[in-house]
Order: sequence, then structure tokens, then C-alpha cells
Amino acid sequence: MQRQAQPAAAVAEGPLSEAELKTLHAYWQAANYLSVGQIYLLANPLLREPLQVKHIKPRLLGHWGTTPGLNFLYAHLNRVIKARDLDAIFICGPGHGGPAMVANAYLEGTYTETYPDVTPDLIGLQKLFRQFSFPGGIPSHDAPETPGSIHEGGELGYSLTHAYGAAFDNPSLKVFCVVGDGEAETGPLAASWHSNKFLNPQTDGAVLPILHLNGYKIANPTVLARIPEDELRQLLEGYGYAPYIIAGDDPMDMHQRMAALLDLVLDQIDEIQGKARKNGKPARPRWPLIVLRTPKGWTGPKEVDGLPVEGTWRAHQVPVDDMTKPEHLRILDRWLRSYHPEELFEASGALKPELRALPPKGQRRMSANPHANGGEVLQELRLPDFRNYAVKVEKPGTRFDEATKVLGAFLRDIIRQNPHNFRIMGPDETASNRLSAVYDVTSKTWLAETLPVDEHLAPNGRVMEILSEHLCQGWLEGYLLTGRHGLFNCYEAFIHIVDAMFNQHAKWLEVTNRLPWRRPIASFNYLLTSHVWRQDHNGFTHQDPGFIDLVMNKKAEVVRVYLAPDTNCLLSIADHCLRSRQYVNVIVAGKQRSLNYLSMDDAIVHCTRGIGIWDWASNDTGEPDVVMACAGDIPTLETLAATDLIRKHLPDLKVRVVNVVDLMKLQPNSEHPHGLSDAEFDALFTASRPVIFAYHGYPWLIHRLCYRRRNHQRHVRQRMMDERLRHRQYTRDHGEDEPDVRDWTWPY
Amino acid sequence: MQRQAQPAAAVAEGPLSEAELKTLHAYWQAANYLSVGQIYLLANPLLREPLQVKHIKPRLLGHWGTTPGLNFLYAHLNRVIKARDLDAIFICGPGHGGPAMVANAYLEGTYTETYPDVTPDLIGLQKLFRQFSFPGGIPSHDAPETPGSIHEGGELGYSLTHAYGAAFDNPSLKVFCVVGDGEAETGPLAASWHSNKFLNPQTDGAVLPILHLNGYKIANPTVLARIPEDELRQLLEGYGYAPYIIAGDDPMDMHQRMAALLDLVLDQIDEIQGKARKNGKPARPRWPLIVLRTPKGWTGPKEVDGLPVEGTWRAHQVPVDDMTKPEHLRILDRWLRSYHPEELFEASGALKPELRALPPKGQRRMSANPHANGGEVLQELRLPDFRNYAVKVEKPGTRFDEATKVLGAFLRDIIRQNPHNFRIMGPDETASNRLSAVYDVTSKTWLAETLPVDEHLAPNGRVMEILSEHLCQGWLEGYLLTGRHGLFNCYEAFIHIVDAMFNQHAKWLEVTNRLPWRRPIASFNYLLTSHVWRQDHNGFTHQDPGFIDLVMNKKAEVVRVYLAPDTNCLLSIADHCLRSRQYVNVIVAGKQRSLNYLSMDDAIVHCTRGIGIWDWASNDTGEPDVVMACAGDIPTLETLAATDLIRKHLPDLKVRVVNVVDLMKLQPNSEHPHGLSDAEFDALFTASRPVIFAYHGYPWLIHRLCYRRRNHQRHVRQRMMDERLRHRQYTRDHGEDEPDVRDWTWPY
Ligand SMILES: Cc1ncc(C[n+]2csc(CCOP(=O)(O)OP(=O)(O)O)c2C)c(N)n1
Ligand SMILES: Cc1ncc(C[n+]2csc(CCOP(=O)(O)OP(=O)(O)O)c2C)c(N)n1
Repeated sequence: MQRQAQPAAAVAEGPLSEAELKTLHAYWQAANYLSVGQIYLLANPLLREPLQVKHIKPRLLGHWGTTPGLNFLYAHLNRVIKARDLDAIFICGPGHGGPAMVANAYLEGTYTETYPDVTPDLIGLQKLFRQFSFPGGIPSHDAPETPGSIHEGGELGYSLTHAYGAAFDNPSLKVFCVVGDGEAETGPLAASWHSNKFLNPQTDGAVLPILHLNGYKIANPTVLARIPEDELRQLLEGYGYAPYIIAGDDPMDMHQRMAALLDLVLDQIDEIQGKARKNGKPARPRWPLIVLRTPKGWTGPKEVDGLPVEGTWRAHQVPVDDMTKPEHLRILDRWLRSYHPEELFEASGALKPELRALPPKGQRRMSANPHANGGEVLQELRLPDFRNYAVKVEKPGTRFDEATKVLGAFLRDIIRQNPHNFRIMGPDETASNRLSAVYDVTSKTWLAETLPVDEHLAPNGRVMEILSEHLCQGWLEGYLLTGRHGLFNCYEAFIHIVDAMFNQHAKWLEVTNRLPWRRPIASFNYLLTSHVWRQDHNGFTHQDPGFIDLVMNKKAEVVRVYLAPDTNCLLSIADHCLRSRQYVNVIVAGKQRSLNYLSMDDAIVHCTRGIGIWDWASNDTGEPDVVMACAGDIPTLETLAATDLIRKHLPDLKVRVVNVVDLMKLQPNSEHPHGLSDAEFDALFTASRPVIFAYHGYPWLIHRLCYRRRNHQRHVRQRMMDERLRHRQYTRDHGEDEPDVRDWTWPY
Repeated sequence: MQRQAQPAAAVAEGPLSEAELKTLHAYWQAANYLSVGQIYLLANPLLREPLQVKHIKPRLLGHWGTTPGLNFLYAHLNRVIKARDLDAIFICGPGHGGPAMVANAYLEGTYTETYPDVTPDLIGLQKLFRQFSFPGGIPSHDAPETPGSIHEGGELGYSLTHAYGAAFDNPSLKVFCVVGDGEAETGPLAASWHSNKFLNPQTDGAVLPILHLNGYKIANPTVLARIPEDELRQLLEGYGYAPYIIAGDDPMDMHQRMAALLDLVLDQIDEIQGKARKNGKPARPRWPLIVLRTPKGWTGPKEVDGLPVEGTWRAHQVPVDDMTKPEHLRILDRWLRSYHPEELFEASGALKPELRALPPKGQRRMSANPHANGGEVLQELRLPDFRNYAVKVEKPGTRFDEATKVLGAFLRDIIRQNPHNFRIMGPDETASNRLSAVYDVTSKTWLAETLPVDEHLAPNGRVMEILSEHLCQGWLEGYLLTGRHGLFNCYEAFIHIVDAMFNQHAKWLEVTNRLPWRRPIASFNYLLTSHVWRQDHNGFTHQDPGFIDLVMNKKAEVVRVYLAPDTNCLLSIADHCLRSRQYVNVIVAGKQRSLNYLSMDDAIVHCTRGIGIWDWASNDTGEPDVVMACAGDIPTLETLAATDLIRKHLPDLKVRVVNVVDLMKLQPNSEHPHGLSDAEFDALFTASRPVIFAYHGYPWLIHRLCYRRRNHQRHVRQRMMDERLRHRQYTRDHGEDEPDVRDWTWPY
């Protein structure tokens, strides 16, 4: 394979016949026309009347700049998909190029199949245009609503990590991923290029990154467009790719060159995969990568009000607005007509048959590929019986285990039984989080160099570790969105790094819940460990329980938070989460040696309820004087130790211990499907007794969940202060816990 | 300048004399000894007795792996600082190499100056060792507590962006920035390399990145260590640097080569800066960069329990533990003695005079450089009178302005008056956020290529735009931490991208508040605009008011949140924030055309109070039937429109309008210094009347702030539902607001 790409030489001759060229170009024109129509037109969709102000939307919204480039690529990809019968999806990094994605889905017929209202005729066209970025209509981004999309792209930076996530364990899939040159400046994207060290040519699909170097962002040039081309080439080669740079603005010339280039790089991908699959020796290849250098807003207005627009940042959104100016209306009219809609659409408004013939058919259409509607290809996870991993609890609070270590054995066997559709992501912490049992049956994915000293590295490992929470998150999102299963294990404090990505994924789930054609996908499962309570050695930076608060801001229908008090509960929770669909599940659990309280049977009952009185720890007979509530492993331990003290020193006081596993239980059932009714709430917490609540994270979350309840005024958060101070002094003297604290067990 | 670095050839001859070499090596030994001592020793600090289990800490914590490399670099940097009289600071990317940073500050005497308790003798040594990662002691990271540090490094990824932030506008400063090869996998770090396109050799200082390629993370090799060296070189050249790779493990050889290399790259930096400063033409140079390839845990135990340790991930933390095993104790003993403490320290425990002579003196010591204690070099910002920018409000609620646009004029003049110590950061949104007035006097920093079509790009621009919220945040942190001022303007929804960085910066402020020797620095000011309420066109992805919730989880002493109801309030708030110290200020303000309510005099009073009754909008005479409360520009507008409706249709109902600017006011004064007393609270909200609270973000924040108040049960969040529905239908039909809504003004 060539190391120094020479695209110019390689594609000197154009592979397209004149007829092919003509159709391909017309198809591109059609997509561009439909895109501009979406941004501007309210009526008169095919310009069969003279264009007037009343045909134009009153508020002009949408992003033109990236759109013609996306349409150009999409048309060319259609050609090769058909020619090679490819199984392919399209990821649109500059997702604000929504008009392009919608236009192409419409041209392929998928849009009408999905939204029968938007017919392939004049009326449908008008609806298509009107709905775009219009109140009650569709978003301006490549959204969940867009058929064929697994990527929103409103918040930039995640296209390439999603693309790799989609490609893992999808050996026949090609993922065409357009990266904006602005997007490429973001941290997550800059890290994502290295994903090629984790892609196995033997058992994974291929990602073809296409860096769309259209030169500008909203109001600035992009960094990658303004470094010398040899520097850009070095950078991309340094990232491990074989880059092919194609630059120009003459459509016919660009068509020929792009067609040739796509043939070339797809041959290379075939060769890479063929070799790896034939000789069974996966090694890290230099995957091809395309840099497409075209003007921003290509084919749009060259100048407006005397200022250059095409090829500048001014083309980013709406290149010409304020249609009350006759000159602007004229520019728009000329622009729209430059695509010759009359040659593209029939009298009915339908696309001409020769253009309809261009894209692939059925599920080969990128807008209809089932991988982009992951629930359609989702295979149930084969789950061993989690009860087999139970620790034996003869007497509550007397036996110690490391909860996540036990979970590791369960995960090990899940991996064993699901070798192709389950992965564990982690930022170099899977062993630290004590899940090492998984390495009995698998390794960590690694395609880069290995040395004899290495352990558990292999091209086909099921555990993926890279020191980037962003990549772990993005890879798993891409993997789940294409119908697979997984778990992201992370230190609790650092999960805030992906707050924004979590937000966007939760929004995706929320929106897809309202789209009947989107099939449910497996939940995103976080295992947060190394949590706030055991980070004394790492210190302040490693302490932050706030991710739960962030999660609780999302709609109840898509988020779940579970705090495992002990090992058997963790197993039960994990089983439940791995079976669930369309949620973000947050499981918080400790990794340190810690007491167990519930037998597996009791744990199942307790976790299924989500909240419950621990009778064995309570000494009330239906009428407690005080309720000791707790959520999370360390708070549970603290609460039990406090209960022990109370029972010893104030034997007449009646204490009830309530443990909360599922935080949503605390909310009224009007707010959350898991919520307790007020009667149930009072039955646990009483209507009037003081409640001392020991919680894992920030206290106000508990208040927020409970403030509508009758006796919430009485929730008190308090600690056994004297004990604390004494203990604190001991640790400062000795550097470790007092033995009577470390080894405390439940005495009753 | 060389493009293809040939370090081997360039440094064939060692520049160090035998005596220099010996001292330098001994100094490194001393730092290593002190580092191992911190991790292991509770007593017997100079091993004057045979090492016994009782001398060892019961819990072994800390990170050895990166430490010898840091110590090696530090010693060599000391040499060149002295030789060249450099003004330099050290940024420790693998911040968990805290023992190294503490050891060096101690060797330089700064540690004792800062913490007089830790004396340069046996007793002090024992304290130094004992306190490390010990309850009540110091963190294991390069923390705020560490003299000379502006970078925590517990959460990896931000070293290089901090380094560049420190270098901006510090023309004589050298920032030596060690980047961990694990850290280099993170998104923020991967994006940070491109900061060199924003560093002006004429007016900024220099950053020397040193990629510490010690090969491993916690439990895995690093990506950059396992790609071929020519690929790594391409990558770094592609990032625009001139990389020099130095690899080896023989100390004497490495000393000679490192000394030569440092001389070489510092000459290059001089040359680059000299040229730019002489000919006055700043252009983007290829700054040098060092790759230091040494074994992880260099000089530590080679093997423990038959497994290789030095040069593997096993050296990451504590390379040998469980000292009850005699063999382990023997290994530790041999290891410690391998540094020959008896040759390094005098009988008193003080460092030998010839070693004390090695580091630079006074403020030239990196641990004592005032830039690393930014408050020491902080210059007051020269602020024009913000009242000069006031919009004239003759009658409340009748005049429209774009609040951030007016703020732009204030910022413009701040830039004019503070050309060297104030910067505005933004992810390509400063114009979109309507602050363009600043471009009347300045440009956006840009050292890469420019084209004739470009606007407002210049090497010395005061506005810094890159499509990376991480870099904006990190640059500004570095800039503030070294004693300057600034503002980060960002779309509200995407600020979640830096949640984790905000968390760490707030923690830094919190800790430094307790360190009297740390002088106060300027506050970190966020201007969040393009907020949730006006994102219909961008849609769901662009809507998220949750950053405020995150901020409110931090300690009251370090965070402030201000919601500007109108233009004059925004000006008053901005002035206040820019004058403040040691806070994170979050200002939320709209950029769209919006009503003004308060004259500047009223705005000042209202913002100073932070909360108040708007008499002009109320018709109660001391005894309202209902309180209409609001926070944020759009909620204020909605509340006033609702009040208008109520007053029209229910003229007998007495309405009181309360506006909240400073969210902290809602909390009890026991919780926050800004909080209202209960009496004050009741005076505004009454003790028993219903309160309808229209808030900018998630409703529970208001509940959380108020739940301790008397009448919080009565806080209701509610909207004028019918009006809403009617309006919704209109926008769906017409694509814009109804004129009577768009043009509504306050009618009284
Ligand atoms: C994380 C993030 N920050 C800021 C924005 C605001 N924004 C929208 S589009 C854009 C420029 C995108 O440039 P590029 O990726 O090159 O796309 P294209 O030029 O093809 O439109 C920016 C900064 C965003 N969408 N996401
Ligand atoms: C953002 C983040 N994720 C995970 C961790 C946990 N962690 C601590 S050290 C480390 C490995 C660091 O490797 P490197 O940067 O190469 O440092 P060195 O090898 O020199 O110790 C990891 C993953 C962290 N500190 N920060």
C-alpha cells in the first residue's frame, strides 16, 4: 500500500461515463435544490411560479455551508454502494447539515416510507420544505427524526467515535464518516482519530473518515484548513492513516476525481480486510482517509451585498437573507434555478425516473440501513443466571466482599456467552475497578504494537481501554445505537468529563421514544466505582458524586440510578440493567472490601422493590421513633454502625432502617413511573417521625426527590460526630482505619 | 531550523563537565530518594537504622511510575534556568507525580519557606514523608498545596492548555510542560497541541512541551508509545512542532544528551522569539518539542515476585508493597539505599551544600516563581465606568435592546484599556453571541495562514476562538492562574462540555482559599448566552440550562450565579464580576432583542441587592394576593406578560412582582453569605401567599434553594397555558412569533 498518497496521479483518468457523470451530477443538483428549498421555501416548491416574498419563510434558519459537500459525498457514496453492493451507513459530523440528510432520505424514498405524509409529489415537497426548522416541524440537525442517522451532530465532536463504535463487530459494515474541519478542533474528535488502533480488520467493519475541509466554522477559518497541506498530511499520517486529499471546485472535474478516489480507497479497504481475514493475522493497517477540500457553501451565491459568500464563513448558515430586498430575492431565485429543478422533477413533483434509479435499493440505502436503527438488528444478550454468582450471606453484615470483583465474574461469563455483541469500555480502569475476572476469557482490544511483557492485549479483546472517557462513551454509544450491548466502567468523579455526551445521548433516547419507527436499543450502562467515599489517597480531585444530579435532570422516562448497598444487590441490579432498553442506567457501587447484608433471594426482592425496610436491622414494631435511611454502600454501612450505637446506648429507642437502591422510588409516582405513592412513602418513612438520611452524594438531591412528601421537613442529615472526630484523629496518627472500624460487623 | 530533528547527531558530545554531571546526577538521586521516602516512610527517614516494617506506612499510596522522569527533567531544567537566568514554571501533566513536585520544592527550600514546619533537617524530613497522602496531610497529586504549581493533574488532560494559557502575554516566561503519554490520549490534550497556532512569539512566552513517553498508563501501554517512532514524529510535526526524541535508560548517557538537547531547544526558542521581536513580524514558527522516552518507574525495583516492574505498568503506583514479606522489605531497602542518601544529606538531615547550590535562587526557582502564584503578579483591571454604556429606559418594559451587544461595547473599552492582561475566549461564537463591538479595537488571535477574505484575525488579537470549549476553558484557567483577567463566552447548552474542568477549577479555588500564601486571583467569568429559551431553530441539542445546577453543587464560597433580566443589569453584573476575586461567576444573559426594565440607577440598586420587588410592575399595597417571581430574561418577560393579563382580567387581585438576579439570595443566610434572612425572605415572598416562580432553568433548583423557607410549599410553577397553546398554533402556522407577542411591551 502507498504510504505517501498521490491521489492526483492515481485518479488522472475519470472512471465515469458521460451518462453516469450526467446522472450523478443531476442527483447532486436535486439534493442541493431540496436542501435550499428546506431552508427557504414555504410554498412554490418547484418554482413553477415566479418567486415572491410570500413563498419564503419568515424566519430563515438552517445551515447551508456544509450541505453541498455532504450532498456531493452522499451521491458518490450511493454510486459505490450500488456498484459494490455495500452495506453502509453515513455519519454526518457537521450534523447541522440536516437539510442534506433529509434531502437524501427523501430522494431515496425512505423519508416517505417513514413519514407517509411527506409524499413524493408537489404537496409532499411543500411539506418537506415547510417542516424544516419550523415550529412543530423537524430540527435543523441530522437528528433522531432523520432516517439513517445514528448521530445528532448538534453538539460537535463525536462523529468519529460514533463511527468506530458502529464498526466494531460489524465485519461487513462500511461506516462513511464526514468530519467537519471545525469539528476536528474539538478535543473528543482530536482524540478519536486514534480509534484506528482499536479496529480489527478481521472482525470489525471499516470506517472511512472524510475530513470535510471547507475551510470555515461559524465566523473563523479552521485550523486544519490553514496549516500547510504537507503539515496536514503529516498529522493524518501521524494519526496512522493514508490520507488522500482531493481539492477543487469544478463540479465535473471533482466528480471524476471523487469517483476514482472512492474506487481506490474502497479497493484498499477490501485489500486490508481480505488480507487480515485470509491469513487470520490481524495487524494494524494504514486505513485510507479522504480530505475533501471544497468551498464552503459550494454552488451557493458567490456574492451578496458586495461581499464574497461562497467559499467563506458567510456561507455557514443562511447565505442570503432579508428577502424584502429585491436584490436578495433575485439572488435566491437565480440560485435555486441554477439547479434546474425543471429537469430534475416530473410534472407531479416526483423525482425523474433516471434519478430515482441512481441510489441503491431497500436496506442498501444508507437512509434505510437497519444498522442505523439499531433496535432492528438487536440480538438479546445471553445472560447467565446472576444468582450463580451470589455470595453466601448467612447472617447480615458479617461477611466482606469486593462487590465489583464479584460482578467481574458475572461479566466474564456474559462475555463468554456473547462473544460478538457485548463490550466493556473503560479509561484504563477496568482492573483498578476490580473487574479483572473478565481477563480469564478475553483481553483488551489492541492493534498497535505489543511487547512480551504485555498482558491481556489482543486484536479481538472485548474490553476497550483508552485514557479518554470521551472515546469510551462515544464508542459505546455507536455500538449501542447499532444494536449491541455494553457497559462503561469509570471512576465516579471523572464521569463528569462526559456530562455533555450523556446529555445528548439521553436526549436522543427521549426523542426516539416518541418515534414509533425507531426500535428500542439496549440501555447505556454506567458502572461508577472508585466513588467519592474511598478516595482519601487520591484526594479532592477524585471526589465528585454530582453525576447523579446531572442524570436526574433528564426526563424520568430515560434515566435510572441504582445505588448498590452490597454485592448481591449489585448482581441483581446489573442483571436488570443489562436486560433493559432505552435507558441510561447509572449503577454506583464500591470496589473495596465491604460488608454484605442480603442473601441473593433477599437482594432480588429488595432490588425489585427498589426500597425497603431492613427488618433485621430495625427494632421497631411498626412504630419507630426514628427512621434511619440510607442509599449507597458506605452510607449504608455508616447507618448500620450508627444504628448499632443507638441500639446499644438507647435501647428504648425504636429504630427503623430503610435502604434505598433505586433513587427514583423517593419521587412521587406522579413524577416518575418508579415513584412510591404517598401512602407507600409514609408506610416506610412514617408521616411524622424524624428521618436521618445518609446518602451517597449531595444532600439536596434527596430533598428534591422528597420535597413534595408529607414529612420531608423532618429529613435530617447528620452524622455521629463524636465518633467521627475520634476516628479522624486515629487515622491521622496511624494512616489507616482503626481496627474496630475497619473490622466492624453487624452484631445482632 | 531543522525540520527533521536529528537529536542523536546534534547532541553526540556531552556538554556537562564531570563535576557538573556528578552534581546533577546526585541532585536527581536526592529528588528520587525524597520521592520514594514520601511514598513509603513513616520514620527512619535517612535509613540511619536498619529498615524495619515499623518504619513503613501502613497504607502504601502514591504514584512512583512517572516520578523519576519528572525529577530528571526538573533537575535538568534547574541547570538551564540558572545557566540562562530563565523565568520559568513547570507544569506537571501527570500530576499524580506529586512526590516529585514536593521533593523538588523541598530541595529548593521553597517548601520550608511555605510550610516552616517542614524543616530542612531530620525532623522536617520525617514530616515531609509522613504527611504525603496521609490523613490530614497533603494530596498525592501536584496540588494547590504544592508551591510552584498552577496545575492539579488529578484529572488528566489539561496540562498543555494550562501551559499555553500561562504563556499568553508573558513574553519572558518559559513554560515547561510535561505531558503524560497516557494523558495524551485524552481529548482535551489531543486538541491542545494545536494551541501553537495561537501563540505569538513576539508578545507571548514560550511553551516547551515534553511528552513523557514512559510507555504505560495504569494497566496498559499507551497508544503513542506503541506506534512506530516515525509515525509519532509525523504526528507531532503534523501538529506543527519540531520534535526531538530522546530515549534511553543509562543515567549518565541520558544526562549528557538531555543537557545538550535542552541547550539546543532553548537556543531555538531564543532564535524564534528574537527574530519575531526584532523584525516585528510575528509568524507561526515550528516550536521545538521534546519526547522523553524512559522506563516507567526508572531506577525503581526491576523485579518483584518474579515479575518485571521497572519499565512496565506495574511501576505505575507502588511498585512493591506488603512489607510483611521480608523479601519486599529487602527490595525496598536496597532501592532506597541505591540513591545513597548518606552521600546526599548531612548529619543534620540537610541537603549537602554542593547540591543546595544547584537549583536557581529566589524567584527563579520554579517552585517560587510568582507567576505560579498568580495573585502575586495580578494587576487590577482598568475598568471604564459601566454606567456610560447604559441604555436609556424612560419607562420600564418599552424599549428593546440586545443585551450582549451592549455589553460588547463595555468589553471593547476594557480591551482598549487593558491591552496586555485581559482576554476573551469563545468557541467560535463571540460574534454569534453579539459581542462584535470588540472587533472595533482588536482581533482574534491567529498565527496560522490568513487569506485576503479574512476579517479580524491577527497574531495579537485579544479574542481567542477555537472550536474547543476545553481549550477555551483551559487557556483561560492558565491565564487567570498566572494573574490575569478574562471572560469565556459560550452557548449555554454546550458549556456542559467543560463540567469536569469547571469542577476542578472550583476545587482549586476552594483549596487555595484555605492557603494563606496563595494570593487571590481574578474570578473565572462565564457569559452564557444563546440560552435555552431561544434555541427553537437549533433545537433540542442546543437546549440545556443544567450548568447552573452543577455550579450550585460547589461550595458557596467560590461560586456565584447571576441571571440578568435586562441590559443595564447585565452591565452592572459584568462590572461586578470582573472586579471580583476567587470566584467562578456564571452570568446568564440573552443575546436577542429584548425588553429593558430598569434605568441604570435602578439596575445598580437591584443588582446590588440581588433580588427585589419591582414596584412599578406590582399593584399590591404591601399585602399581595399572589407573588409573581422571576429569574432570567425570558422568564421575566413571561412573568410581566402574565402579570399584565392578571391585572387586566382580574383587576381586584393584588399582584407583586419579584425579580431575582443573584440566585444565592434565595438560600438561607446560614447556607450562603449572600442568602436572605428568613425575615427578609418573607418580606419579599410573604409567609403565606402563593408564589408563581418563573425560572430560567430546571425548577428543582429553586425548590432546593428555598425548601427551608416558611412558605415554600406554595411555590408553584405554572404557565399561562391557554395563551401558550394559542401562540404555539400561530408559530406552527406562520413560522414566527405573533406580532402581539413579539412586540408586546409593558402597558402601564
Ligand atoms: C461543541 C460545539 N461547540 C460549538 C458549536 C456551535 N457551532 C455550530 S456549527 C459550528 C461550526 C462548525 O464548523 P464545521 O465543523 O467545519 O462544519 P461546517 O463548516 O462544515 O459547517 C459551531 C462552532 C457546536 N455546534 N458544538
Ligand atoms: C481523566 C482521567 N481519567 C482517568 C484517570 C485515572 N488515571 C490516573 S493515572 C492514569 C494513567 C496516566 O498515565 P500517564 O499520563 O502516561 O502518566 P504516567 O504514566 O507518567 O504516570 C489514569 C488512567 C485520571 N486520573 N484522569
